Order: sequence, then C-alpha cells, then structure tokens
Amino acid sequence: MNNSSAPLILASTSATRADMLARAGIVAACVPPRVDEEEAKAALRAAGAAPRDQADALAEMKARRVSARAPGALVIGADQVLDLDGEAFDKPGSREEARAQLLRLRGARHHLFSAAVVARDGAPIWRHVARATLTMRTFSEAFLDRYLDEEGEAVFSTVGGYRVEARGVQLFSRIEGDWFAILGLPLLELAAWLRVTGALEE
Amino acid sequence: MNNSSAPLILASTSATRADMLARAGIVAACVPPRVDEEEAKAALRAAGAAPRDQADALAEMKARRVSARAPGALVIGADQVLDLDGEAFDKPGSREEARAQLLRLRGARHHLFSAAVVARDGAPIWRHVARATLTMRTFSEAFLDRYLDEEGEAVFSTVGGYRVEARGVQLFSRIEGDWFAILGLPLLELAAWLRVTGALEE
Repeated sequence: MNNSSAPLILASTSATRADMLARAGIVAACVPPRVDEEEAKAALRAAGAAPRDQADALAEMKARRVSARAPGALVIGADQVLDLDGEAFDKPGSREEARAQLLRLRGARHHLFSAAVVARDGAPIWRHVARATLTMRTFSEAFLDRYLDEEGEAVFSTVGGYRVEARGVQLFSRIEGDWFAILGLPLLELAAWLRVTGALEE
Repeated sequence: MNNSSAPLILASTSATRADMLARAGIVAACVPPRVDEEEAKAALRAAGAAPRDQADALAEMKARRVSARAPGALVIGADQVLDLDGEAFDKPGSREEARAQLLRLRGARHHLFSAAVVARDGAPIWRHVARATLTMRTFSEAFLDRYLDEEGEAVFSTVGGYRVEARGVQLFSRIEGDWFAILGLPLLELAAWLRVTGALEE
C-alpha cells in the first residue's frame, strides 16, 4: 500500500521488524546498519543516558548510518531497550545470562521502550518512542528451568529473555501500555507519519 | 507446562485460540461446542444484553455445553464481540458486509470484548472479560477497496473485518487497553487462575 514517492528502507537486520512491516503491507527494503551496538550502548551508558534515551539514540544512529548511503530515501531505524529501575538490560546471549536476568525481573515491574527514527539524507526528520509496562509474577525456579529448557536458544536473542507470543507469556501477571513497544516498533505512529509525508496511501 | 490434574479442554473451533494456548505452552484438547451462535446472539440481543454481556454469555454457553459431556474436566469457553456505541457487530461473512462495517467504524472509536468462562461438571466456576479500545482513522474509500482486495476472504471471518496483525493495522490511529482482548482470549488472567487451581505449574 505504498505510494510511489521516496523509497522506504528499514535500517535493520531484525527479521521481526521486517516481518511487521511486510504483514502491515508496508514495502521497505532492509539494509543492515553496520553499527557496533554494544560499543554504542556502552558509550551511552557511560554518559549516563537513561534506557529510553539509549533506545532513541541507537535508532537514530542506525537510521543516519544507512541514510547517508541512500540519498533521498526515507530510512527507518529502530531499537528496543528493557528498563528495570533505570538499568538497561541487554539481550542475554546465553542460558545462564537469561536465567540471571529473569530472576532479577521476577516479582518486579519493568518497562520496554521501542524507539523509531526516520532519517533522510543523513539527518533525522521524525522520531517516536513507545512504552509498555510489564509485571513478572513470582514464578518458581522449577518453572524457570523448565521454561528455559522449552524455549531453548530462542530467548537468548530477545531483550529480557522472553517472548510474550510464546511460553514467555506465562512469566507475567500483568502487561500494560503500548503493545507495539513489546513488538519492537511503534507501527501506528510510524504509519501515520508516512501517510502525512505521502509515502503511504491515505 | 501443565500439571497432571484435571484435563483441560478448549470448547472452541477457533484455530487462533487453540494456537494461543499451544504457543503459551498450555496443553488443551479442542472440542467443538456445537452451539448455534447466531441463534444465541439473536436471543441475547432481543433480550437487550449489552455487547460485553453477549460475549460473556456466549463463552459460558460454550463452556457449559462441552463440560456437561466431560465430567471432571476444566472446560474453557471463549467469545469475542465488537461494540460500537452499544451495538454488537457480527463477523461480516462477505466483502460487501465487511466494507459496510468498516465504513461505519471509520473515524470512530469501538471496543473489543473477549470473554472466557471455565466450567466444570456443567457449571461455570471462573470468568473474565478483557477490553480493548480501538480508534479507526478516516481512511479513503480508495484505501478501503485496496485493503479489501489485498486481505480477501481472510477478513470475512474476523470480527469487524480486520486483522491488526496484518494489513488491518493501517486502518487504526490508536489502540489502547488489553491486547489480549484483540487476540480473543484473556490469557494472563486465565493462566493465573489455572495456576491457583493447580492445573498449571507455578
């Protein structure tokens, strides 16, 4: 349902985000942003950036990077950060780290922030950050170990070590706020802005 | 992740709800409730039941029906109703009806109610109704026709004529409230109660 104006690019290697756009009928080419995310995050944390601002800054960095190489295109950068009491959590990367993160999140409330930034010709021209609030129940360690057995490697690359669309939903007692913050892209706001610019049909 | 207590049955022919439970790791047998939904809804409407109460009553009817034939089992009934200013919308069933419904929903706010009732030995023992509030933007008729072309028969059997996980998301300017009301089953509350009864691991 795109109009034939500026080409749309998703500056991402995330299959989930590409799939979200495709299912919504928004045609975008995917270009890897080649940003060293770990290094960028470490610098942002050292500078005292709040988790929400880390997501926003990473999304801008990815959008700018690809935009600089694609004159005239609208380039979407996106990032998701988990915030537990002001501390940003990384993707766990291993079973041990996922287990440790989930034990810290157990019985507590955390936020997920999903930021999107659109850049054109190397400069950001639109941005939005969506927020969801999630409360984990006080599950048993036996439950946790079985959960990790059943989910396997699928959760090592997800922020917080859970997928709410899979067994991860059983970790939660309450989920509030913007569901698109959980999915990883503020799709309604992005689509609304793309319509205003003429990139999507009204 | 079920415990080995009472068997769990989903009184439904909905592939979506069966899939939601399966992905969450909740093992349930699916048994069609053989309730004449259209007749039951017509009776509820004639009796002046509000859309929310129609969803709750239909969920109870399905749970009771299957439960009466499955002694000792925990039987989950579920139903979803769209409420526009107090009027309940049915699944459109055809392109013409989907188009008419979407034109009525355009530019307005409606609610989705998803009810779940658990019955045992023919009597309801637990119930919950989840609510989401959705605002449709003022899309053009050209957009609507293209949307209907692209979605095809997939939307004839969805309440309101849209799937938010597909192109339907482009119909909306705002989505608030409980996402599980949109998915069609209040999963967090159901799972919490199943843990209390011992049917799910804590």
